[in-house]
Amino acid sequence: MQLLEERIRKDGIVRERNVLKVDSFINHQMDIGLFEEMAKEWKRLFAGKPINKILTIEASGIGIAAVAAREFGVPVVFAKKSMSINLDQDNYRTKIQSFTHGREYEVIVSKKFLTPGDHVLLIDDFLANGCALMGLLELVQAAGATVEGIGIAIEKGFQSGGERIRSMGIQLESLAIVESMSPGGEIVFRGQP
Amino acid sequence: MQLLEERIRKDGIVRERNVLKVDSFINHQMDIGLFEEMAKEWKRLFAGKPINKILTIEASGIGIAAVAAREFGVPVVFAKKSMSINLDQDNYRTKIQSFTHGREYEVIVSKKFLTPGDHVLLIDDFLANGCALMGLLELVQAAGATVEGIGIAIEKGFQSGGERIRSMGIQLESLAIVESMSPGGEIVFRGQP
Repeated sequence: MQLLEERIRKDGIVRERNVLKVDSFINHQMDIGLFEEMAKEWKRLFAGKPINKILTIEASGIGIAAVAAREFGVPVVFAKKSMSINLDQDNYRTKIQSFTHGREYEVIVSKKFLTPGDHVLLIDDFLANGCALMGLLELVQAAGATVEGIGIAIEKGFQSGGERIRSMGIQLESLAIVESMSPGGEIVFRGQP
Repeated sequence: MQLLEERIRKDGIVRERNVLKVDSFINHQMDIGLFEEMAKEWKRLFAGKPINKILTIEASGIGIAAVAAREFGVPVVFAKKSMSINLDQDNYRTKIQSFTHGREYEVIVSKKFLTPGDHVLLIDDFLANGCALMGLLELVQAAGATVEGIGIAIEKGFQSGGERIRSMGIQLESLAIVESMSPGGEIVFRGQP
């Protein structure tokens, strides 16, 4: 998606250890106008799919998912990362290794909000090694729900997550795929149809 | 706001220890259509204010804030609750006591995204004792930015946060104020103009 690629080139900051900072428009400050354009693009790419729910994971997926959900006319469920006293005990749960936070955490969805009748679109801001997505897929599978597709804002194409997901036969639509990047250097995107 | 009060009566669940569960439409599964109506109401209530940014706190404020931001045509900044390796070291930070999670945590906003020129609307899902909001207000004050108002979905009117905020002279617009509730009993709302 050209608009997103241009924005990453303009405002993204590449750091050592393959860190791409997009916190001025994606995951700390959020450009809602950009999110609306991304939502329209996913709506086009997943046209005809019987999606009735969007699933994401806290925290930085929530804003993108909320704006996308408006475009699709469906509710969002966000998986939670910690056990609060207000959460039902009747949950699907799995463990995810976070590269960004350098630790393992538990991801939880209430059984009330993910059921065998659900046709789910997964939405997240980043796809790198795919650990978070694999966790969400496990939760959907545990619920007996159907994955209709996955919408990602930025995929790190040089890491293994995208290939892993695509080899499972799931429709994965990453709006920008970074092929290579380096601090101070150019960001190269994968050509997309 | 009648629509929200009716929804709380219909789908809210009152538990012991003053817990009001609204996880089927507010803070686990999110009803985006409802959020849009809430956003329109805040837009009406804060009409004429020079708001250029919405500030919220992860995680359950983000969805509501994103939908509200679309209505106001401004970006959202969400304060983060933990230190990730991708976060700038140059931050405003404060500590907040969480009743829901039973612990104290640090709340962080990058100095890049909160500046003296900002006129901020704070948005969150719940107001009870006001600890989270007081933390956000501290961050805005540290940045030298201006608070134009606070929009809350559900205020627990029997706890002290609302009175504390109103006594500071800040325009606080809670779309539903619960005066009293009990497990199995009726939820009573405060009459609003």
